[in-house]
Formats: sequence, C-alpha cells, structure tokens
Amino acid sequence: MKRQSIRICGLQGIPEINPGDNLSGHIVRALRVATEAEHGAVCVPGSGIILVVAQKVVSKAEGCLVRLADVTPSKRARMWADEHRKDARIIEVVLQQAKRIVRMDRGVLIVETSHGFVCANAGVDVSNAPRGYVVTLPVDPDRSARQLREKLETAIGMPIGVIISDTFGRPWRQGLTNVALGVSGLSPFIDYRGQTDSYGRELSATVLAVADELAAAAELVMGKTSGIPAAVVEGLAYLRAEGSGRALIRSADEDLFR
Amino acid sequence: MKRQSIRICGLQGIPEINPGDNLSGHIVRALRVATEAEHGAVCVPGSGIILVVAQKVVSKAEGCLVRLADVTPSKRARMWADEHRKDARIIEVVLQQAKRIVRMDRGVLIVETSHGFVCANAGVDVSNAPRGYVVTLPVDPDRSARQLREKLETAIGMPIGVIISDTFGRPWRQGLTNVALGVSGLSPFIDYRGQTDSYGRELSATVLAVADELAAAAELVMGKTSGIPAAVVEGLAYLRAEGSGRALIRSADEDLFR
Repeated sequence: MKRQSIRICGLQGIPEINPGDNLSGHIVRALRVATEAEHGAVCVPGSGIILVVAQKVVSKAEGCLVRLADVTPSKRARMWADEHRKDARIIEVVLQQAKRIVRMDRGVLIVETSHGFVCANAGVDVSNAPRGYVVTLPVDPDRSARQLREKLETAIGMPIGVIISDTFGRPWRQGLTNVALGVSGLSPFIDYRGQTDSYGRELSATVLAVADELAAAAELVMGKTSGIPAAVVEGLAYLRAEGSGRALIRSADEDLFR
Repeated sequence: MKRQSIRICGLQGIPEINPGDNLSGHIVRALRVATEAEHGAVCVPGSGIILVVAQKVVSKAEGCLVRLADVTPSKRARMWADEHRKDARIIEVVLQQAKRIVRMDRGVLIVETSHGFVCANAGVDVSNAPRGYVVTLPVDPDRSARQLREKLETAIGMPIGVIISDTFGRPWRQGLTNVALGVSGLSPFIDYRGQTDSYGRELSATVLAVADELAAAAELVMGKTSGIPAAVVEGLAYLRAEGSGRALIRSADEDLFR
C-alpha cells in the first residue's frame, strides 16, 4: 500500500529581496541545501516537489512597491483614514488596487482586487516593506508562478509545482490562513466527484482546493518573522497540470457573499 | 539554527467506525505502526505530535447518526427539497441542526449550527454514512477532542495535540478546505502581534489560525475515498494549551458577512 506521507521544509538562507533580485537563484540554492541535507539529492526520485513562496518576496523581486511620498490621497481616502486613524496614502493605494469595495465597515476595508481576489486592504502591506514603501500584489500571480517554475525546472532539471501564497482573512472564522494566489505546474483542485465512498455511494460536490491547503500547510514552517519566505513540499502525489490560481476565485455570480 | 521541517503521515489501518467503537484504540494502533516504522518509537523525542482526525469518524463513534426513516420533514423542508430535488428528510435534519439560516439560495443551504459554525448543510453528511442514515457533527467537538487526547496521552505516555477536522466551503473562493472544529492540547492560533518585521516595525493584526492550517495540511494525506480518516503531524514547534475549536468561530457581532 502506498505510504501517505509528506514532508514540508522551510527554505532557509534566502536573503532580504529587493527589486530586480534573482529570486529563483536564491530559491534554487536554498532548495539544494534543504533537500541535499535530507536525501543527498534535490528530491526523492519519483516523488514530485512543490514550492510554496510568499507573495511578499515575489512582489518585491518584481518591483511591486509604491513609494508613499509619491501618493496623493483622494478625499475619500483621507476621510476613511481620519475616521480610523490610518495613513491616508496607504488607503489611497488600497483603493487604487481595488476593482470594487466589498465592505468598508468598522475600520475594515475588504475589496475585490483587479485580479478578483476578495481580501482585506487589497493585499497592500506595510510589514516587511522597505521604509516609506508599501508592497502590492503581483500584477499577474499565475504568470509570476509560471516564470518562477520555468526557471526552477531549468535549474534543477525536474518538474516542480509552484504556488505563490498570501495570508488572507475569511468570513465567519477568526484568524488568518495562507491561500494560493498564483499556481503553476499543478492542478489547484482535487476533484472527487463521481468517486464512491466506502459504502459504494457517489460523493457529491467534493472538490478540494488543494493549492490553498498546500499554501496553508507551508505557512506552518514559514512564519512571519523568521525570514523563511518559502517552503518545499515533498512526497505528495499531485495532479500535474498547467495550473491556475485564478481558478480558485469564485466568480461574483456564483458567490452568495459579496 | 532550528530546522523548520514537519512530516505529515496518514494513519492507515483504521477500520470502518461504528457507534460505540473504541476510536482511540484504533488510532493508537495506527499511530504506532506509522511512527515506529519511521523512528523506532512513537515520535521523535522532544518534538510534539499533533493528531488530526476527521469529524466523520468521531461522529460515528459517538453515535451522531440520524435514521432517515424516523424523520418527518416539515413543510419548509419539503418545499425546499422539492424545489432543488433533494431528500426532504435530510433537509429537515439540517434545519434541526441549525440555529439560524445564513443563506438559502440557488440550492445552497448555509446555516449557523448550534455550535456557531457557519457551513453548508450544518455539516450533515450522507457520504460515508451507513445506508439510511446521515451523520451529524459531534455535539461538542472540543469535548470530543479533549476526551480523545486524554485517552491517547494515557496510551502513548506523552503529550499530544488533537484536532477534529471537517471539510467546509468558504465565500469568494472555489473548492473546499479542511478546518478545525474541535481542538485540544494546543493553541488554535499563533499570535504575531507585537513582534517586529525584518525592518524592525511592529506587525499589526497578524493572528494565524494554525489549527485550521493543520487541518488543511492533514487533508492532503487523508483524502475522501482512501480510508485514511486521521493523520499525525510531527516536528512542529507548537504552543501547548488547553485549546479550543470554538475560539476559531468569529462572533456574529464581529462578522461582516452574515
């Protein structure tokens, strides 16, 4: 019987990333250190590997930074910022990144981003940004994931799945979890529809968001303050595919909560 | 530097569970097989272990089953069932398990359960239920987790964290992920508030729902059809605590989406 066991390893030694830095080069080096220590090779032959990398370092490498000194807040941004003691320039960046405001209530600003993600503050973040700047989401996280995957596959000579993750809140439940923004090289879903349970009955409507579960799993070894912006998952029998993080976005007309 | 590496292993050999079965006994046996094969002992000394177990087997062991032949559907259940070609008796069980209906739209029935969980169909499930029955959520998942933990700790002679997980949908995103319903022996959160980023700035409002991330991570090795209803996570430096799955529920007055 196939052993169901996976290992998730945080990649250490990736330095602070700045615009234009060779992120894939740093990841390849960290990947070699992490996996050679364990196996004497980049990976156990026959088992796929999946890299999960924090959006923050991808954005910074791609130069998705806004200098706050260059931002002129609109009246709306100034009013909201005054009311909730926030920086009006940051609110202005959030509004510019938003396609639509979903909720603007009790100091919480939840928007639909240009990509379609529904999240707080359009993913705009001050933490781990250079002083005087905010970091915005990658323009096209699936493209970022694909480009990173192509570079990594060339360097390590084997297929790899790539997930770009970010930390999102969610309705109804306390606390944040990591989800997948960009996906390349694996299907973001496992689809059990048409399969049967142990009593022989068909399972209904059971599509698991495996890319989000991988992003959440990787967060466990990444942390916010430990300088580990990426992790590698080994041993998972995953479905190789072009992949898409965009496919994880529920369309507005199917969504009951916008 | 501490290696950040965790291993997640699906527990094989747990049989179909029936009301009154000794679930903890089956888990202890599977745990010994899984970890002795790897380490020659139940666990690596000094690293904690966390057991994630599917709500379905906990519910079945506790007898949380409803025989559909005994259910008389209300008029409301019959109308909804007729309209969406569902079994009116199952809808009736869902409505009985619900404290409040959050959305009843387009064939989707999202309720707040007696515990406070917001989920589809109150967690009532036909799949993997004995024929003619549906499985309901445990009456008190935190109590179930605590009782299971106490039995496991007695049997294996070391502390263990226990999470009872279920598969929930979420607004805005496609696909389901596993979340924690009951938690015992670990904090469901990691709280980064007051800590600083790599630029020395305080992180704001960053509380990670680590129990939900663990539930999601464990799902990767559990699957729906493979007869693996539990998994063990090794190597995670987690915060030991009494723990609570209820704490993961956002209160109605803090929630912008009910």
